[in-house]
Amino acid sequence: MDDPSRKKPQGPKDMLGRCELAPRRRARETFFSHLGVLELREERVDVVCALGRVISQPIVSSEDLPVFSRSTMDGYAVRAQDTFGATEALPAYLNMAGEVPMGVPASGVVRVQDAMKIATGGMLPEGADAVVMFEQTAPVDDRMIEVTRSVAPGENVIQAGDDVQEGEVVLQAGHRLRPQDIGVLCGLGVTRVPVYRRPRVAVIPTGSEIVPPHQVAGPGQVRDINSYHLSALIEQAGGVPDRYAIVPDDLAALTESVLRALAECEVVVLSGGSSAGTRDLTAEVVSRLGGPGIVVHGVAVKPGKPTICAVVRKTPVFGLPGHPAAIVIGFDLFVRPVLRLLSGLREVPWSSLRRPVIRARMSRSVSSVAGREDYIRVAIEIEEEQIRARPILGKSGLIRTLVDAHGTVIIPEERIGLERGEEVEVALFD
Amino acid sequence: MDDPSRKKPQGPKDMLGRCELAPRRRARETFFSHLGVLELREERVDVVCALGRVISQPIVSSEDLPVFSRSTMDGYAVRAQDTFGATEALPAYLNMAGEVPMGVPASGVVRVQDAMKIATGGMLPEGADAVVMFEQTAPVDDRMIEVTRSVAPGENVIQAGDDVQEGEVVLQAGHRLRPQDIGVLCGLGVTRVPVYRRPRVAVIPTGSEIVPPHQVAGPGQVRDINSYHLSALIEQAGGVPDRYAIVPDDLAALTESVLRALAECEVVVLSGGSSAGTRDLTAEVVSRLGGPGIVVHGVAVKPGKPTICAVVRKTPVFGLPGHPAAIVIGFDLFVRPVLRLLSGLREVPWSSLRRPVIRARMSRSVSSVAGREDYIRVAIEIEEEQIRARPILGKSGLIRTLVDAHGTVIIPEERIGLERGEEVEVALFD
Repeated sequence: MDDPSRKKPQGPKDMLGRCELAPRRRARETFFSHLGVLELREERVDVVCALGRVISQPIVSSEDLPVFSRSTMDGYAVRAQDTFGATEALPAYLNMAGEVPMGVPASGVVRVQDAMKIATGGMLPEGADAVVMFEQTAPVDDRMIEVTRSVAPGENVIQAGDDVQEGEVVLQAGHRLRPQDIGVLCGLGVTRVPVYRRPRVAVIPTGSEIVPPHQVAGPGQVRDINSYHLSALIEQAGGVPDRYAIVPDDLAALTESVLRALAECEVVVLSGGSSAGTRDLTAEVVSRLGGPGIVVHGVAVKPGKPTICAVVRKTPVFGLPGHPAAIVIGFDLFVRPVLRLLSGLREVPWSSLRRPVIRARMSRSVSSVAGREDYIRVAIEIEEEQIRARPILGKSGLIRTLVDAHGTVIIPEERIGLERGEEVEVALFD
Repeated sequence: MDDPSRKKPQGPKDMLGRCELAPRRRARETFFSHLGVLELREERVDVVCALGRVISQPIVSSEDLPVFSRSTMDGYAVRAQDTFGATEALPAYLNMAGEVPMGVPASGVVRVQDAMKIATGGMLPEGADAVVMFEQTAPVDDRMIEVTRSVAPGENVIQAGDDVQEGEVVLQAGHRLRPQDIGVLCGLGVTRVPVYRRPRVAVIPTGSEIVPPHQVAGPGQVRDINSYHLSALIEQAGGVPDRYAIVPDDLAALTESVLRALAECEVVVLSGGSSAGTRDLTAEVVSRLGGPGIVVHGVAVKPGKPTICAVVRKTPVFGLPGHPAAIVIGFDLFVRPVLRLLSGLREVPWSSLRRPVIRARMSRSVSSVAGREDYIRVAIEIEEEQIRARPILGKSGLIRTLVDAHGTVIIPEERIGLERGEEVEVALFD
């Protein structure tokens, strides 16, 4: 318990937040400077499981796509020069030289004044260099057609290698695979795809009062909300959550669990226990396991103040506060950016512009305290054809405030509140 | 092949697009009016697999959350009235009456002038009705503390049922589960969650020229891009893609495959074969299987013109064009909205506002044809600190134009192009 007489664990000299709370920006700078460069791991996955994964090596095409010239229209394969000058009034007359079957080359060749029937996607026959659309032809008899417009060489044709050329880089390392990227990989025959491994994140629920969700909570007990909430956030952020057994407020048990997590996972998140006892225990355990240890201990945000950030032998370890609304803030400020680094995703300059945000007007005033950032949970409502953000008030220990909210509005450090009617940017929950 | 002499299959009298292309809006109205109301199926899933799923029944709490009153601070549980009038100069003196352990009720009771140590999350002991923060107390000796501020009844306490009350609807049917919703379900002990089943979508690749991605494409052959691209789009849209074997251009084989798909899946998508032969075959097969059959046959959009929409005995069946860029358009216009209907998602009025769009200026002019909507693929670039949309030109048969693009800009039907520097809205690819 947060008894003032109790000894505090020691961190590095520049450990933030123990005496005064660190502003968000400085807390993040401190944490990431201690974190250093994270090692990314790779694996190969089947292309049908690769959607959303980040590729770890540039994909270089080992062949041309397509490997032969194809028609992009239904019509006739011709030598373009045989159509030069053709008009409706003065058509060119060409001999029917058969038909290109789909999936195999034509058996014949297109010679001077020849036309060979071809479907979209058909392989251009030898001798032909263009395709005339059906609509610009008319049958004369069984053996002859007339062409009423001239075509240029290459017209209505995709040339071999037009889509992708042999040796070309099709996708850069660090790119997150979208449906069309899955398509191009299949087109090139890349059925095993090199991707970054999804970071494995240990979630350790702590607190003697916590019981699993399927259990009835007796007097004094509550069901585990936080480790499930956190696991879902991790899953959404591209990590693989690994939920550990609930650990009571016990130094030896917590140490054992954290040691196992450090051995098995790339990120460790302790989901408090809301009590200061649990928090101090977390701090004590983490600070004993290796340097640099705890580098941020408390951030000037509300909710989320008692967030602990540590680096233990290069592994990021977080002690998130026990209040549901505080977890979200701690997660967004520290854990999500770490998962993003570990994802291997190459940022594009406009990445930040695609956040799901919505502009709205505050439907009532809310007050805040200068010197800390306040994160207000809001529900979006349409009122008199205006988009309104209605603050969801209530203690941050209530999960319901998050469930009823659609997103978050930040009251900056230097402000002491937001006015009714003021325009704000709501960061929507995913 | 699209030989003008060939007989066309017949659809209902209001079938659109066979003679003239249907404008997008009318095509959608026609299709959805024929589709009617789709039947939604339910299932129960474990709460740890429920992220992103849509709940099919309102979740009603069978108990209070929390089930007892809890402290939200580390401090002392007291009777509020014993602190009334307390100040730094004139503190209230209270007797230490033990400590509330975590996870079980206190053994003792808080009587007049008593204070019992309690941690955040601790169960409020009998007799107490408020909590004084540690920071507002000081020890006098082992048996007594002084309180330097008064607290109101209920202060620093979450009352039983404050989060959720027994009988309350916590989540409405039609709600897509977010991480915090997973949290509240766990808190309430709802570990099996009623959700709508994800719609199973048959993807039938057609065309005699198509070979599987792991195979080498011989002369005249191409690897299957479209059914993998489509499956990824379906997966992303919340459906379960079921990729069928490649069907050559053969009436009997295609009929058999479509019949099986109709029996096994809730949506059927035929991924063309780019040739008109395949398209006509698709139309022929689909129009024979049951009413109302084909209701849209061609839409005035580019790319995406030869899109076929049908309803076969209440099941939506689509024939999407073979060009990669055209698939995306047909999918977005028809398949995605059907998957959304089948997801059971209850729309909120501002759903449409959260699309991932970005405003940009065209980096060059592009021309279009009046009377049809043109979908231009664009790459986003930052140039002179401005966000630019650079058109990716190239035939819609190239998958590469999609891979190099970040999103799409629409040139409306009534326009004949977009000017360089014009501000446009880019719908970003997911």
